[in-house]
Amino acid sequence: MKKIDILVIGGGASGLQAAISAKTNYPDKSVVVVRQEKQVLVPCGIPYIFGSLQSSDKNIMPDNALLNIGVEIKVAEVTFVDIENNICELSNNEKIQFEKVIFATGSTPTKPKWLKGVDLENVFTIPKNKIYLDEMHTRLKTLKKIITIGAGFIGVEMADEMNKAGWDVTLVELEDSILNKAFDKEFGDKAQELIESRGVKVITGNGVKEIIGTDGKVSKVILTTGEELDADAVILSMGYVPNTELAKKSGIELNKYGFIKTCEYMRVENCTDDIFAVGDCAEKRDFLTRKLNGTMLASTACAEARVAGMNLYELSPCKVFAGTIAIYNTAIGDSAFGTAGIIESRAKEDNFSVVVGSFTGMDKHPGTLEGMHEQTVKLIVAADCGMILGGEVYGGMSVGELTNTIGFLIQSHVNIKTLLTAQIGTHPMLTGSPAAYPLIKAAEIVAKKLKC
Amino acid sequence: MKKIDILVIGGGASGLQAAISAKTNYPDKSVVVVRQEKQVLVPCGIPYIFGSLQSSDKNIMPDNALLNIGVEIKVAEVTFVDIENNICELSNNEKIQFEKVIFATGSTPTKPKWLKGVDLENVFTIPKNKIYLDEMHTRLKTLKKIITIGAGFIGVEMADEMNKAGWDVTLVELEDSILNKAFDKEFGDKAQELIESRGVKVITGNGVKEIIGTDGKVSKVILTTGEELDADAVILSMGYVPNTELAKKSGIELNKYGFIKTCEYMRVENCTDDIFAVGDCAEKRDFLTRKLNGTMLASTACAEARVAGMNLYELSPCKVFAGTIAIYNTAIGDSAFGTAGIIESRAKEDNFSVVVGSFTGMDKHPGTLEGMHEQTVKLIVAADCGMILGGEVYGGMSVGELTNTIGFLIQSHVNIKTLLTAQIGTHPMLTGSPAAYPLIKAAEIVAKKLKC
Repeated sequence: MKKIDILVIGGGASGLQAAISAKTNYPDKSVVVVRQEKQVLVPCGIPYIFGSLQSSDKNIMPDNALLNIGVEIKVAEVTFVDIENNICELSNNEKIQFEKVIFATGSTPTKPKWLKGVDLENVFTIPKNKIYLDEMHTRLKTLKKIITIGAGFIGVEMADEMNKAGWDVTLVELEDSILNKAFDKEFGDKAQELIESRGVKVITGNGVKEIIGTDGKVSKVILTTGEELDADAVILSMGYVPNTELAKKSGIELNKYGFIKTCEYMRVENCTDDIFAVGDCAEKRDFLTRKLNGTMLASTACAEARVAGMNLYELSPCKVFAGTIAIYNTAIGDSAFGTAGIIESRAKEDNFSVVVGSFTGMDKHPGTLEGMHEQTVKLIVAADCGMILGGEVYGGMSVGELTNTIGFLIQSHVNIKTLLTAQIGTHPMLTGSPAAYPLIKAAEIVAKKLKC
Repeated sequence: MKKIDILVIGGGASGLQAAISAKTNYPDKSVVVVRQEKQVLVPCGIPYIFGSLQSSDKNIMPDNALLNIGVEIKVAEVTFVDIENNICELSNNEKIQFEKVIFATGSTPTKPKWLKGVDLENVFTIPKNKIYLDEMHTRLKTLKKIITIGAGFIGVEMADEMNKAGWDVTLVELEDSILNKAFDKEFGDKAQELIESRGVKVITGNGVKEIIGTDGKVSKVILTTGEELDADAVILSMGYVPNTELAKKSGIELNKYGFIKTCEYMRVENCTDDIFAVGDCAEKRDFLTRKLNGTMLASTACAEARVAGMNLYELSPCKVFAGTIAIYNTAIGDSAFGTAGIIESRAKEDNFSVVVGSFTGMDKHPGTLEGMHEQTVKLIVAADCGMILGGEVYGGMSVGELTNTIGFLIQSHVNIKTLLTAQIGTHPMLTGSPAAYPLIKAAEIVAKKLKC
């Protein structure tokens, strides 16, 4: 039986990062990643395969990041993990003895059983699977009218990229605005306006009742209102479920949403100290509400994977994962949207009393500079204590890093007052003006409302 | 005698922001800005007048930011401030009685007396003065060979913009690398390589000995090594001095560098509680070293001005200016450089023992995406306690906001360990990849060196 030190199950973003973290923190230990895919896709890059990148070959996570530091990669399927005796079984009956194991088994797109017609030909989901996506891409090239169902990030990005590449795309969303889980309505409406101006047809406040087929192939989509849409293909972007069958089979406890129960060191609950889980398959707890949730983000997964890697053989009490903040962005053409923490529309159901401030300025100054983009920052702040709970940003391509600034403010439990005296750096080509920097101006509006 | 509540002397960035802050914090008070200029330039936009913007008319600070909130603007020269009786005298002998005054008198470019030929025709400086700069611009259009002396931000940006607009530009710097006050040599060398590739000639490690004239006009520059350069014009970019003659004349104490002595509320030292000073004319103390220094940045000025405005009539003990962090950026074409806090080469002379970590990745992911730019983050961290003291960034146009993230980390006294478990948001088009985000990777390198 092969004996190794650290076993990582899964080769996606969390598995990659877990292996890197394990190897760099414990360079003398052997680290093996067992994964099912020969080639692993960059998960957030997947929508771009169908537009900007034109091919999945340009969206591969380089194995060298692992090989160069001495991590071994094994392409195989794990069928069982004996979590008492630290033995992993592969589908070829091979067994591996390990000291520590990290489950990084990821997630799979939802294909809802209640939706009639879901198994018709040309109904697709978006798994992180190169072979599937390549076949889907080839097939789609022979088709024209695409209905994308579900306007979360993946749905919106798929719709926008496919429209860009020439498909006739309609995006259908049950809720009143797109991207509604991550953004308040005014931001969602802005995003909708943008993708519509680029040619995507958007239907909100309307669900899908049935997918109709002709000769076993998609031909129509019927909405809950009865409206019928002609369709050559349907892309389901209705969420993901954690891949936790292996964990369950191996006797690991799952939470009520089906995720592997973990603690803040990313150790699996009610197991020996040798069993860890990270990424989409691992339990997520909201940083602010402390409630369980279902956030699945490569960046969150990587943060968890870093934490696991640092705590494998010895706990580092200051290196824990404190709960999911859910910082993310999307880009539509030259415009971008970013969000971190809690949004206003969710605050009440999350039981927070909040005050918000929103300011629209520019992302360059003076505004006469070429390429200047409007920039809006909205801050969501606890009414009782002034703690920054969330932020939403709309602007040009600097939105990603600006959103990360807000993410750090939330993580550091920064009070809104701190922003009133904060120093920022500004530059004509790179930021708003020092006298009208949207993040500071939004903070001033909140502070005035809070009388602080 | 005209009676007002709050008087702001000076209409540049700090005066504008001080008036906005005063009026928004005390909406019932009358606020008057007295300034000498009819039209005020956006200070950081000045180099772009000579290139991208083509005219100073596109670089005007809008008076509406003041007028719309009820601030009065008066174009006049203040000749004396009676700081005991709160009376301000104008050059037309008009007097204004005020309750509070904020000095925001700015700075003037240095024209060193020791430099022979400095008063020749076609030797220019870069004051924040529209009339001067318009005349200079018109004159420069008839000239070809430009020598820019001093490779700080203004010098580098002027050189790059004028080169872009077709002038023949040589940049001369006494120190071994350009931008050396703000960046370590490897970043300065990168910037030099970039502007050279765009056509600017750069001479480092060589000062200017003399400017030679023919018929009273610049014809040559002689360097300290004896080398002679043909020149039609010389642009001096050798620093700025605070405009504090008025303050001095009015009996206000200056520090050894000629700045108005102020406390953390931006109140002037050894005066009544009614006298404030902000911006380039006000004392600067380093956030980390606590030493006096001569930092002059519009963004710092605006932070001070916000603080002054919040403390005019009542002190707000949590709203103080805690010292200058000096966060700034510059852009050269599609590349940008940002810096915040202390740099490695200055740490020793500042008496800090530091550990540094530098990581180069990408600002988009996968790297195959169009427009991807290399991104380097260097962190400078206190060796004894792990506090983040500084950061330098090279990359694409998201550098400005990324530098602000580092600025917030410094201001919040964040320990490098915090970054090891930090959550960030990533997106293909907007940031580096979650598994190789340069800020986190640089932190990991530092943490490894610190064994923390």
